[in-house]
Amino acid sequence: MTETTAPREVGVTELVLRDAHQSLMATRMALEDMVDACTDIDAAGYWSVECWGGATYDACIRFLNEDPWERLRTFRELMPNSRLQMLLRGQNLLGYRHYEDGVVNRFVEKSAENGMDVYRVFDALNDVRNVKEAIAAVRRVDKHAQGTICYTESPLHTVEGYVELARDLMELGCDSLCIKDMAALLKPQPAYDIVKAIKDDLGEDVRIHVHCHATTGVTLVSLMKAIEAGADVVDTSISSISLGPGHNPTESLVEMLRGTPYTTNLDDSRLLKIKDHFAQVRPRYSQFMSAITGVETEIFKSQIPGGMISNMESQLRQQGAGDRLREVLLEVPRVREVAGFPPLVTPSSQIVGTQAVFNVLMGPYKTLTAEFADLMLGYYGETIGERDPEIVEAARVQSGKEPIDVRPADLIPPEWDRLSIEASALEGFDGTDEDVLTYAMFPGVAPGFFVERPQGPKNVGKDPAELATDELSKQSGGPVKGPINYSVTMNGKSHSVTVERA
Amino acid sequence: MTETTAPREVGVTELVLRDAHQSLMATRMALEDMVDACTDIDAAGYWSVECWGGATYDACIRFLNEDPWERLRTFRELMPNSRLQMLLRGQNLLGYRHYEDGVVNRFVEKSAENGMDVYRVFDALNDVRNVKEAIAAVRRVDKHAQGTICYTESPLHTVEGYVELARDLMELGCDSLCIKDMAALLKPQPAYDIVKAIKDDLGEDVRIHVHCHATTGVTLVSLMKAIEAGADVVDTSISSISLGPGHNPTESLVEMLRGTPYTTNLDDSRLLKIKDHFAQVRPRYSQFMSAITGVETEIFKSQIPGGMISNMESQLRQQGAGDRLREVLLEVPRVREVAGFPPLVTPSSQIVGTQAVFNVLMGPYKTLTAEFADLMLGYYGETIGERDPEIVEAARVQSGKEPIDVRPADLIPPEWDRLSIEASALEGFDGTDEDVLTYAMFPGVAPGFFVERPQGPKNVGKDPAELATDELSKQSGGPVKGPINYSVTMNGKSHSVTVERA
Repeated sequence: MTETTAPREVGVTELVLRDAHQSLMATRMALEDMVDACTDIDAAGYWSVECWGGATYDACIRFLNEDPWERLRTFRELMPNSRLQMLLRGQNLLGYRHYEDGVVNRFVEKSAENGMDVYRVFDALNDVRNVKEAIAAVRRVDKHAQGTICYTESPLHTVEGYVELARDLMELGCDSLCIKDMAALLKPQPAYDIVKAIKDDLGEDVRIHVHCHATTGVTLVSLMKAIEAGADVVDTSISSISLGPGHNPTESLVEMLRGTPYTTNLDDSRLLKIKDHFAQVRPRYSQFMSAITGVETEIFKSQIPGGMISNMESQLRQQGAGDRLREVLLEVPRVREVAGFPPLVTPSSQIVGTQAVFNVLMGPYKTLTAEFADLMLGYYGETIGERDPEIVEAARVQSGKEPIDVRPADLIPPEWDRLSIEASALEGFDGTDEDVLTYAMFPGVAPGFFVERPQGPKNVGKDPAELATDELSKQSGGPVKGPINYSVTMNGKSHSVTVERA
Repeated sequence: MTETTAPREVGVTELVLRDAHQSLMATRMALEDMVDACTDIDAAGYWSVECWGGATYDACIRFLNEDPWERLRTFRELMPNSRLQMLLRGQNLLGYRHYEDGVVNRFVEKSAENGMDVYRVFDALNDVRNVKEAIAAVRRVDKHAQGTICYTESPLHTVEGYVELARDLMELGCDSLCIKDMAALLKPQPAYDIVKAIKDDLGEDVRIHVHCHATTGVTLVSLMKAIEAGADVVDTSISSISLGPGHNPTESLVEMLRGTPYTTNLDDSRLLKIKDHFAQVRPRYSQFMSAITGVETEIFKSQIPGGMISNMESQLRQQGAGDRLREVLLEVPRVREVAGFPPLVTPSSQIVGTQAVFNVLMGPYKTLTAEFADLMLGYYGETIGERDPEIVEAARVQSGKEPIDVRPADLIPPEWDRLSIEASALEGFDGTDEDVLTYAMFPGVAPGFFVERPQGPKNVGKDPAELATDELSKQSGGPVKGPINYSVTMNGKSHSVTVERA
């Protein structure tokens, strides 16, 4: 009799509550449309459930009139057996600027108190100085700190470089590492090589998570290769909210591993229920759905994520230059080189993309955006490559700021007290640190949200029937439901007229 | 300096001209919408171009008023450097019954004369007796004969069994083998194991092609594993007509292999042009598009291909039993077991599926379809498992036919002369063997086609703008051009008013 070795269990992080609807339906899914799936998600056997991040927080207060902290507490209550996971932009927290360390610490403490377990901490430039405080804060509250490698490709990015970055992150005391492939650029061979090299260098026990988007169609194969190389956990999303610019389907991962030396041990019957639930929800958000449903392999050349292309298209159209997208797509890699080859992920993707649009419309570097000038001057941190000295000089002249090489947050004075005072002056402020953090991270949106909050959540999803009627009215030039009241003036005399279909 | 070995070239069969539009847009694509891509397809470096088969032939004469032979000659002319490939249903040719060997030979001769190079010959039951004459015919005209293993799963299907089938096919003199996974059931590990086992048993030189659909989302990984095991050629479709119940995208395959010990050597710039061409064409066929765009992993349990589910749904709705689909899906595997575990592919998929519908609606095996009775009695050939003796007996009683165990075609007397005489009596018959074959394979459709043929091709694609107008009229309950009747209440009094465009 031959002895069969039990397959190695590969953990799965379910993305449907955060990145999946962020990537596929503009982050618009309401908590109300998630709660009925939570029992099944909690019992399916996932390693963790990603459910919180910058875009979900932003969408909650900007579009859904939902308190993001209340959303987090609800998840905590409905999924008592799950590790709740969030994506944290290092020193930027969930906002778009650097915060002073005191604010970073307060954010981590409060989110842990409200139920967060696993913090995936990344910096858009892979500058470890920008994640070290957040990681230290997570360790202080005894939660899981995950250091992140943003995956990108350039002449300067090598397997050895990624190993070095992994080593730097582990030295900060991370509990695990994540290879984050936000644009679906990670092909099978590099996936294998990087995971293998990190394990070889830092030891088998270093826990590696792999996060891939599906846009280019190759990354389920990359997950397979990463698993063969020893990856411990991979990220997927339930099939009914998957693929396109989203992620590989959870069920496909499960089936992919059958018969191999690996298994997910997920509960099929729970997955089926989760799938059915979100298959019902999905059509309600069709007006927000990504136009991309198939694969996009041209990204490999431009390295521009799908979401960024649609942003640039709309910027160009606003300038009456909708026909110049191809020029901009060619310009992006050049701007990226000038900026020292940053990965393209929030906020570097927006900064590089917008500068590329400016270059095409007004001539190369004739006008620098304030953010691009800051990037060139080091105010977002260090890049892997040297930044073009001529453009650095132009940035200095235009902005009146000097280049820096210290950690950007070191230049920020303590700001918690000031933020608290400002927040407490706002109508509807509830006196909590959570509200101060909302104000700190979204100073433009928070004031309106605090006022509107008592009215409760606004679900922006719509029944497909309702959507079809809306669409019809739009096309017919007006609503047809009738009856409609008109005031009709005929031969100088006013009449009250009601019209409806006979 | 380390020496780098050149990567092994993996051949690619492009499916866009046959199986891709068959699987995604009901085989409706007109030749007219293909011709402009042919130069690029011819130059891209494919191993072969699949462009002909039963459904395309059928759709040509049934819906498009195109002579399928003219289509083949056009491909031959436009792609002089390519191997043209077709899918041939063994002794069934492109029809739905068995033909006598003389007709099989005539078909192969005429298609070779008109430009066919590679014949992928399969039998729905994997009964090699049903492919041997077609394979011999292909060898006689000195073209490429590919023997096919229809992949399925059951308690009786084993890697060893597939190796044995491969051996039987190679003994017929095949130039290559194909593992045909029509329902996207082939997972990575079995893909590896089967290819490896065949190569180990029959030698490295046995050329293996792998054909997978994409429905379940795992089969690009299966292609990777098949390639690692030594597969020589894999089938894909250009990305703009791919995925869902179709196939893995050609460009994703290309990118998947970068950096690995394998390469496709396809020309990226040609692929981009082919992709752009079909991205333009695709929206014209949106009224025929498959409703499935994501993945369907439940198929692994029912083993029912996507196209078959929609067929069964429509059969059930016609009987006012649209709510009983789930029962039917559970019945299909039971019927398949009773029938000796045939693979589910044309025509066995239709035969088993329809019997399952009958069983649910009228009670198990109360009524047998004529085709199911024939299947039970051996008139389609041998199945891997024993067929349930009780149901065989019921089939005998109901049909008045005796069970057979000879090759079904052995019972058919020579029929070419009779078919020629019948065809020549038809209006519009052009006197060629090609027309006799059209009549032989589609006796119900050919007469109408011969009459209509002089009117030339009818492209059933529609401009998206035109489609939107059609949709609007449908939703408004009719064309909006008017006149429309309204009930108008003015100052409390009702008037009947008719409005139309002035």
